[in-house]
Amino acid sequence: MGLKNSRAGNYPEWYQNVISEASMAENSSSPGCMVIKPWGYGIWERIRDVFDEKIKETDHENCYFPMFIPLSFFQKEAEHVDGFAKEMAVVTHSRLAMKDGKLTPEGKLEEPLIVRPTSEAIIADSFSKWVKSYRDLPVLVNQWANVVRWEMRPRLFLRTREFLWQEGHTAHASAAEAEEETKRMLEAYRDLCENTLAMPVLVGRKPEHEKFPGAVETYCVEAMMQDGKALQAGTSHFLGQNFAKAANISFVNKNNESEFAYTTSWGVSTRLIGGVIMTHADDEGMVVPPKIAPYQVVIVPVIKKAEDTDAVMAYINKLITALKTQLPFGEKIRIKLDKRNKAPVDMFWDWTRKGAPVVCEIGMRDAEGGKVMVKERLKLGTPEGKQIIEAEAFVSGIARRLEDIQAAMFAKAKDRLMHNIRTDIKTPEEFAKYFEASNVWIEDGKPGKVAFVRGKWSGDPASEELLKAMKITIRCIPFDQSGTEGVCLLTGKPATTDVIYARSY
Amino acid sequence: MGLKNSRAGNYPEWYQNVISEASMAENSSSPGCMVIKPWGYGIWERIRDVFDEKIKETDHENCYFPMFIPLSFFQKEAEHVDGFAKEMAVVTHSRLAMKDGKLTPEGKLEEPLIVRPTSEAIIADSFSKWVKSYRDLPVLVNQWANVVRWEMRPRLFLRTREFLWQEGHTAHASAAEAEEETKRMLEAYRDLCENTLAMPVLVGRKPEHEKFPGAVETYCVEAMMQDGKALQAGTSHFLGQNFAKAANISFVNKNNESEFAYTTSWGVSTRLIGGVIMTHADDEGMVVPPKIAPYQVVIVPVIKKAEDTDAVMAYINKLITALKTQLPFGEKIRIKLDKRNKAPVDMFWDWTRKGAPVVCEIGMRDAEGGKVMVKERLKLGTPEGKQIIEAEAFVSGIARRLEDIQAAMFAKAKDRLMHNIRTDIKTPEEFAKYFEASNVWIEDGKPGKVAFVRGKWSGDPASEELLKAMKITIRCIPFDQSGTEGVCLLTGKPATTDVIYARSY
Repeated sequence: MGLKNSRAGNYPEWYQNVISEASMAENSSSPGCMVIKPWGYGIWERIRDVFDEKIKETDHENCYFPMFIPLSFFQKEAEHVDGFAKEMAVVTHSRLAMKDGKLTPEGKLEEPLIVRPTSEAIIADSFSKWVKSYRDLPVLVNQWANVVRWEMRPRLFLRTREFLWQEGHTAHASAAEAEEETKRMLEAYRDLCENTLAMPVLVGRKPEHEKFPGAVETYCVEAMMQDGKALQAGTSHFLGQNFAKAANISFVNKNNESEFAYTTSWGVSTRLIGGVIMTHADDEGMVVPPKIAPYQVVIVPVIKKAEDTDAVMAYINKLITALKTQLPFGEKIRIKLDKRNKAPVDMFWDWTRKGAPVVCEIGMRDAEGGKVMVKERLKLGTPEGKQIIEAEAFVSGIARRLEDIQAAMFAKAKDRLMHNIRTDIKTPEEFAKYFEASNVWIEDGKPGKVAFVRGKWSGDPASEELLKAMKITIRCIPFDQSGTEGVCLLTGKPATTDVIYARSY
Repeated sequence: MGLKNSRAGNYPEWYQNVISEASMAENSSSPGCMVIKPWGYGIWERIRDVFDEKIKETDHENCYFPMFIPLSFFQKEAEHVDGFAKEMAVVTHSRLAMKDGKLTPEGKLEEPLIVRPTSEAIIADSFSKWVKSYRDLPVLVNQWANVVRWEMRPRLFLRTREFLWQEGHTAHASAAEAEEETKRMLEAYRDLCENTLAMPVLVGRKPEHEKFPGAVETYCVEAMMQDGKALQAGTSHFLGQNFAKAANISFVNKNNESEFAYTTSWGVSTRLIGGVIMTHADDEGMVVPPKIAPYQVVIVPVIKKAEDTDAVMAYINKLITALKTQLPFGEKIRIKLDKRNKAPVDMFWDWTRKGAPVVCEIGMRDAEGGKVMVKERLKLGTPEGKQIIEAEAFVSGIARRLEDIQAAMFAKAKDRLMHNIRTDIKTPEEFAKYFEASNVWIEDGKPGKVAFVRGKWSGDPASEELLKAMKITIRCIPFDQSGTEGVCLLTGKPATTDVIYARSY
């Protein structure tokens, strides 16, 4: 009953199959853009709700800034525009008119507008109006928005021309406070990835050549996909005074001197959903962590004789009422009764492909015996994955069951990450040979052929070219440095800095 | 202590003052676009949460569709493109390059892309892929998104080039079912406006010349602002088979015949916030209905001696803990402790300008006596608007108090609406004379000089020009028709249809 492609067979095709069979998203007729379908969007809503709460707990306020940024704003920060100029959607006209029977852009704008690839440029402009004195600082805002980067090789969730994200933007009176903020939000991302998405990550900072354009430091959380590649899951940038100088965010400090503010920005996007897929999905389809599952429990009625309908439905409704009193993760439980007029087995496979954590099949025999047939997606195909349980025990145990599934998903992914960071590669030769192979899929419980390497890096400026030639990247410079001396795996030069090398998305 | 401008003095300036003093939004450096600031965005979040629940209760699912619509998609529905062509942002290039020292658009697109002014065209394209059989119907989706209409005279919340909204889109197997959906969502809007925003509305359908471009019927909810003008607060469109034919949304029906689906769309936007302002704000600033107030209760500490700080703060924290057990409107209460280092009187006026429903000032005397100074925004300046109450009574009564404020705000606005629909104007002469005057502000409890007229309309095609010349509009053809015969207030011809005439935003 597997998908058309398996992870071992054709990993990229498998990824597409998972998304399409789960009805999470699809390519749109609008080139390079995706349609996020209800199951995919539902996952995004859960991620958003969880992280929005964190944003507010940490005293940030949601705002909304214009999507159109005047071109001249990009001229102010040279590195920033260099980083994004090649992938910007440009609005040049403000209407259409019929000309020779063809709809044609008209009303040429005096100044072209850029559809935000990120909002530092326009938000810095607002900050410059809001901040006059140290008393106005810090400014702590966030927005949930769509952004556009003109990807030439789009892939659902991972790289689409338009995507959804949150972007936090803050301004502070001191560098220390801004750096603290940058790291606080990095930690919030680690927490989100690990405790909500059940996706373990490595944390650290980016090397110079991988920094956000215009940043002083970029910190990141990096996850390992099932093919051993890295996915940058979130970034938090300390922007120093770069954007403050460009946009003139200046304030009078306590000593009555004028000073530029220190700013930060940080974001995670719908790309996280791509990470969740490649962390948890299997050859049968999607597996959604209970915390972000649009429905945590799905109920499939199994009605063999029409005259049983009332009794079965009454039993199901009683069960749903009882389940609704339960609070997995301390929140309202999310239950779906599948009312479609389809064969129960087809409904079951639909929810399996979608990766709903728990599916209950309930028929006349269950209604009469006070039982529930409980199927756990994570244990599909195993004897424990399919059990008939007393309804009362099922209800009273559902919160614990979902919490256990969440924990098991994290443990499994953590195990994969921990067992696939090679630390024993010590020379450039071994290193090059290691990355000559390519990984298809890291089978559960077994080490993959190629995944991450933790090793030394000299910081040599030539690294960027060497990495490009080998098609690998430095994912991060982990915070936990060993401090030992060794040999740079790229250049062979002496080096003390530990970095994570990997292929990446 | 009033705003710079009053409603009676300069109504349009008063509107701007309310928004700016409440820090709800501001004009951006991005031409014609606004920055929605935390207090304004917080109101939008509440509106969104309330309506999102309704959307889901009525079996709609949230999705996300691309913001860029290929130009050719607009060529398919002639009326639709006619309606929007004059206000479309057009993306024509995909990157910037430095040319002669100037950033210049490059990478001209083969086909220009339109930034959605509304999404019928792109969503119909998806529907055409999703719908094959009657079994696939109905399709019931919604998205929360930004849209762009190139307004030439932008006004905060009411008309900005970019705004936020929800747009529901559905496809059905029969016209009757689609019409039922259209009316169900119209009723959902009436309920939202009246029971959440405390903004009474008239419901009805639009005359032919005011319909959504491409619709068979447009239904609307119309509110009366304090200057007697109408604000279209929401619209629900029955699109018949127009978009289905344009995008080929066809399905095999139960009789095994191919048929085009019947579609609907419906939306409300951040414009609602403009409506809330002009329904409830007064000469002292904003007044926010408790149901959508980002904070329902604000606590301002009044600490006169530093040594009182601990005692006062301990008392306040105890009060907050007690308040949090209360559930106004059956929901978690929203409380803000104002920790700013500002004079209490300034904090109080800040929250007055913002229109927080209840502000508590708490000092040492209150802490010692177990009391709370309670100020109600709606009763500002009256003796009942400022009372010292036992803390326990305040806590146990807070839900009821907020619910009463909500009800009082609705009653006041309803009263204004009911007393300002003239039904006694019977001839075109009287009618023209009536609208020669202009209204500034409908003082509470008094009829305005000019507001709405309910009277006859012949439906004559010349009406559109006549209305334009008089700068008035037909807001809607109310569902409750009297059926009596009379004289068209525009043409003097015999007419039986009752309509609502008004100036409008």
